Amino acid sequence: MGSRRDFIEKMSLTALSLPILYGSTPLFAAFEQPYDAPILRVAIMGLGSYATRVAKAMVDCKRAKLVGVISGTPSKITKWQAEYDIPEKNCYNYANFDSIKDNPDIDAVYIITPNGLHCEQAIRVAKASKHVICEKPMAINAEEGERMVKACEAANVKLLVGYRMHFEPKTVEVIRMRKAGEFGQPKFFQGQSGFVIGNPDQWRLNKELSGGGAMMDIGIYSVNGARYMLGEEPIWITAQETKTDPVMFKEGIDETITFQMGFPSGAVASCLSTYAMRHLDRFFMTGDDGWVEMQPSTGYGPIEGRTHKGELSQPHITHQTLQMDGMAQLIFDGIQPLVPVDGEEGLKDLKIIDAIYRAAKKGEKVML
Amino acid sequence: MGSRRDFIEKMSLTALSLPILYGSTPLFAAFEQPYDAPILRVAIMGLGSYATRVAKAMVDCKRAKLVGVISGTPSKITKWQAEYDIPEKNCYNYANFDSIKDNPDIDAVYIITPNGLHCEQAIRVAKASKHVICEKPMAINAEEGERMVKACEAANVKLLVGYRMHFEPKTVEVIRMRKAGEFGQPKFFQGQSGFVIGNPDQWRLNKELSGGGAMMDIGIYSVNGARYMLGEEPIWITAQETKTDPVMFKEGIDETITFQMGFPSGAVASCLSTYAMRHLDRFFMTGDDGWVEMQPSTGYGPIEGRTHKGELSQPHITHQTLQMDGMAQLIFDGIQPLVPVDGEEGLKDLKIIDAIYRAAKKGEKVML
Repeated sequence: MGSRRDFIEKMSLTALSLPILYGSTPLFAAFEQPYDAPILRVAIMGLGSYATRVAKAMVDCKRAKLVGVISGTPSKITKWQAEYDIPEKNCYNYANFDSIKDNPDIDAVYIITPNGLHCEQAIRVAKASKHVICEKPMAINAEEGERMVKACEAANVKLLVGYRMHFEPKTVEVIRMRKAGEFGQPKFFQGQSGFVIGNPDQWRLNKELSGGGAMMDIGIYSVNGARYMLGEEPIWITAQETKTDPVMFKEGIDETITFQMGFPSGAVASCLSTYAMRHLDRFFMTGDDGWVEMQPSTGYGPIEGRTHKGELSQPHITHQTLQMDGMAQLIFDGIQPLVPVDGEEGLKDLKIIDAIYRAAKKGEKVML
Repeated sequence: MGSRRDFIEKMSLTALSLPILYGSTPLFAAFEQPYDAPILRVAIMGLGSYATRVAKAMVDCKRAKLVGVISGTPSKITKWQAEYDIPEKNCYNYANFDSIKDNPDIDAVYIITPNGLHCEQAIRVAKASKHVICEKPMAINAEEGERMVKACEAANVKLLVGYRMHFEPKTVEVIRMRKAGEFGQPKFFQGQSGFVIGNPDQWRLNKELSGGGAMMDIGIYSVNGARYMLGEEPIWITAQETKTDPVMFKEGIDETITFQMGFPSGAVASCLSTYAMRHLDRFFMTGDDGWVEMQPSTGYGPIEGRTHKGELSQPHITHQTLQMDGMAQLIFDGIQPLVPVDGEEGLKDLKIIDAIYRAAKKGEKVML
């Protein structure tokens, strides 16, 4: 499979006449032609608002299908059963979902619960011999992430993380351009990820469930973006925390963090993560030979952006549709996106987030 | 004069039907109507490339005129005399320019020499009882800046710093909008100032003459911009230095510095100063009710930018023309730009730059 992956990557970099490549296949042709390849049968765990968005997006998938649910709220299950034609036998709650092991009609479980629950839930899914798809952040720290990776390896199931941007057409095009050297040596990445959070009672502001504040929710986009926009792993991190509302943002819930990363090439990244500022969904990268700016850069879309060559014109397709089809291709066909979405990728972000929190607390540079 | 200044500022904030206000007078009317007000007669000290740019721009001034030169290179003096019709009696060298004291035909000296020379030269000009206009950075550290401010106070002459952006129409409009509350409470400023420097033998890469590297040349735009875009003075600073080419950028010459500032309101700034990266002349500010982005933000123009209300459409006028007319208005009529250009303003930036260097060296937050 290694050599096939190499071949696919080489194709992606050379077949420039095609506007976007999606794995080995041009983006749309893959989904519009009749396809008799296997369908990834997915159960969603946690039926909140983002799960609702994923379920709606999956209706348009060619390779993935929502077939089951796991929830602690029976009324939600009933509603979803009706809406997505889900049989009773594919419905579980948090007490009994280990028995999904005996259900041959479910291939994977997509965990869309609060961050603090991901680790134990993922390990249980792995033990039930189902592929694990986990919303990002994969867990609330690298130690948990490592346990998840090991559990999935031991169970011989895939561990995939909900990095929808890795499937988003304009983002994929920028990554392709960067890998093809069209920006020259990348030098600087700016990631600004933030919004003003609403309801103070939501789980995202509860440390036990969220594992942190804005960084664990929106800041991770700048962390991950820095890596796929620059194509390197950071060697040092500095970070500064600012808190203006200690009532809303309690101990352990970061409101605003600026953080910086240095890379082996000498490239640097300068990022912002915040729950208290508006109009912040902005990426920029400059290299020796070109630049790209994206704004919005990681919202649900449409993403907009331009490079030194002009506007990014790849069409908007619902990110979660692309992600779930892409994950099906990955699981069944071994086709990797240009940037991985596996547990190792999730773990890299968690190690950086751990370091950001450490750097902010110590007020000193943290080496990785 | 205090009350007049207050009145002018109030006008600037209320007379919104005029697209740009320039002091108390609409921008263009001020210069297009016949004006019998006094003309600021300026000698330029240091006849390098930026001085050449200033001299050309001053040809279009209505209130300022190039009448003298100070240079160590006789051939340059001859050339400038011919080009700008400068009489022999208004030509000086670095040994004899103190005698400008006895020249009634020169009102001010614009110092456009290497940064490391500004302080002593400004003090000599002040002692010659001429107004001092000094290119930025005003000096190479705050201690020097303080000596300059005191010398000019003692001599009862003005000390003005070449903050051309404070006269640039789109920038002035953004500052007006910020003061009028049109962005709501400012929350975040991004300043990215950099380019790839050429000739390694230039004075800008000689610590004794420049006082530092990119920060002293281009980084100061982000320092100053943070202050006029947010309307506050920072209370803490952190900074990280990256050096990829220690041959070109010797000890004391910063290549790339990322720096962050915290403000009393909780606003933060995240900035980049570099001599090693391209495509970096970018400002962004977001507040509770709006945002502005400018790119290019501080180059010689045209500046381009947009806010939540749309494109900034103020016309481009050569910045140095506006600056020199504005400084004449300031000196003769007491009309202040919306953000000061005096020695105290220059000193505020120098104190911040001192702190940035300290923070980068210590690797710790520096409180101001």
